[in-house]
Amino acid sequence: MAIAPAPIAEIRRGPFIESIHCGHAVICDASGGVIAAWGDPEAVVLPRSSAKMIQALPLITSGAADRFGLTDAQLALACASHQGATLHTDAVTRWLGDLGLDDDALRCGPEVSRDPEVARTMIREGAEPCQVHNNCSGKHAGFLTLNRHLGGEAEYINPDHPVQVACRAATEDVTQEDSPGYGIDGCSAPNFATTMHGMARAMAYFASAHSRGDSQSAAATRLVQAMYAHPVLVAGEGRACTRLMRAVTEPVALKTGAEGFFVAILPERQIGIAVKAADGATRAAECAIAALLVRLGAAQAGHPDVAAFLTPVLRNRRDIAVGEIRPAPGLLS
Amino acid sequence: MAIAPAPIAEIRRGPFIESIHCGHAVICDASGGVIAAWGDPEAVVLPRSSAKMIQALPLITSGAADRFGLTDAQLALACASHQGATLHTDAVTRWLGDLGLDDDALRCGPEVSRDPEVARTMIREGAEPCQVHNNCSGKHAGFLTLNRHLGGEAEYINPDHPVQVACRAATEDVTQEDSPGYGIDGCSAPNFATTMHGMARAMAYFASAHSRGDSQSAAATRLVQAMYAHPVLVAGEGRACTRLMRAVTEPVALKTGAEGFFVAILPERQIGIAVKAADGATRAAECAIAALLVRLGAAQAGHPDVAAFLTPVLRNRRDIAVGEIRPAPGLLS
Repeated sequence: MAIAPAPIAEIRRGPFIESIHCGHAVICDASGGVIAAWGDPEAVVLPRSSAKMIQALPLITSGAADRFGLTDAQLALACASHQGATLHTDAVTRWLGDLGLDDDALRCGPEVSRDPEVARTMIREGAEPCQVHNNCSGKHAGFLTLNRHLGGEAEYINPDHPVQVACRAATEDVTQEDSPGYGIDGCSAPNFATTMHGMARAMAYFASAHSRGDSQSAAATRLVQAMYAHPVLVAGEGRACTRLMRAVTEPVALKTGAEGFFVAILPERQIGIAVKAADGATRAAECAIAALLVRLGAAQAGHPDVAAFLTPVLRNRRDIAVGEIRPAPGLLS
Repeated sequence: MAIAPAPIAEIRRGPFIESIHCGHAVICDASGGVIAAWGDPEAVVLPRSSAKMIQALPLITSGAADRFGLTDAQLALACASHQGATLHTDAVTRWLGDLGLDDDALRCGPEVSRDPEVARTMIREGAEPCQVHNNCSGKHAGFLTLNRHLGGEAEYINPDHPVQVACRAATEDVTQEDSPGYGIDGCSAPNFATTMHGMARAMAYFASAHSRGDSQSAAATRLVQAMYAHPVLVAGEGRACTRLMRAVTEPVALKTGAEGFFVAILPERQIGIAVKAADGATRAAECAIAALLVRLGAAQAGHPDVAAFLTPVLRNRRDIAVGEIRPAPGLLS
């Protein structure tokens, strides 16, 4: 029987708890065992962009990354939900150029840049959003690189395309579960379902990969190191992944996903974390992952870049502090 | 003991329920009795902008509305969370001008227009958002009109200011509850807490006001009639309140509120409805209020402006249908 989601974050306004978020959270060790859990570890979930590191594994294990000389920065972008700032779009455009491709080869669809200044400038100049502005364009540049290596046809986002077949196999391998199916993501790629336990197990696989000698583990380690070497490429200035990866007190790779997903990889402890706000709220997932990092001692609650997500102050349109977000008490200790 | 919120809406992607929203919903009759409820009728809530009709009552009962010759359009704006389209901001600016005031008299704070074309045009022209663009500027024009009538000082949003004292008294009268306090709203006005039952009771008060002869009931009827005479002023083109008020099969006044609130006033049945998504999600509140209108026979599920909120299709960045929102089965029947 399904276990109900547990409280993970609350929204306070004045003396009242105005809203409350419930969800699931699982912490796994290197063996895949559950160290701690809230809500239902067996809940079936779509990890959305929190699965990008998994989707990037075949890019390396296939030999494509080495054949095309991908840098750590490019591997970080392959795992990124970037905000379409100039440093992101320039890097993806150059990467596509290295493959002899351009924006038209992407299948992620156009998205308004999430960088406020870029978005405003594009409106002023009458420029339309391109596919490189899509927060997933780095992942798709990775897909195109793998596809060039595999010699597949252009529609690399089809679920039976060799690129996606490889992603499914990688997902099932690191989650140690048969995926019950997929949903189509915002970027049109299939997103393979797993359980919360499966996703936390996958993150623990990444966190413990450096202790193993096989080639997929080496690929996992390379991706994790690329992410925390380039936190700004994984998301962008001001974003939770970037700010938290800079603030942690030990190397941690962090990745958000749509509909309230968040994962963390802690290589020094060889543990992985998966969080899903059951209602899909990003603010709750950000608060909960910050709380679990503080709980584990990998982040300090008083660090401004941690507090910005752990206990953010809510300000109104006159910049008056009117409330705050707080983690559910059970997450912190 | 608190009753847990009940499922009100679910988010589907492919074959999976990706996210689920829980909340509270109460339907009251003219006597204030509960006809139907989901979740906890005794949950203490901040009704946010769903309380604007209540906050507009003193504007009429004080005599201010008649003294300053307010039109039904202005009364609809006093109850509105408008999107800052030109028809809204022009009307509020004229209203302020009638009082010999301008944007500086408002205390709601500036807000980027929620009308996409206005927002883009302002960026192109380098124009900064004004307070009239704030979705609450009509309510605040009403506060300023009441304040002129009462002769209060300029900071009409202070909780002990006569304008807000009058709002609190109106709230306690129509909810038939002592308010346990307030939170400061996005527009800096106090927002008085009540229970879900209290808020549904208040909406039933409005719905049955035409059956009573007292002056506050007459004011309530006038506001309800102003709202459904001017659905586009209450919100704006494309917005839930506006589209649903145009689509219903009998007169219904509808009003959204931040953090997942929604209320409905059905005068022909003399019933009121209050909905609160416990997690604060607007998409869930919109779906649930549409479902309850369909349940009661006041809206048709197949009407495109109802379906747009009852069972909206979720499309990704290539405009591919990837999922949908659906009301929890228990709401519809």
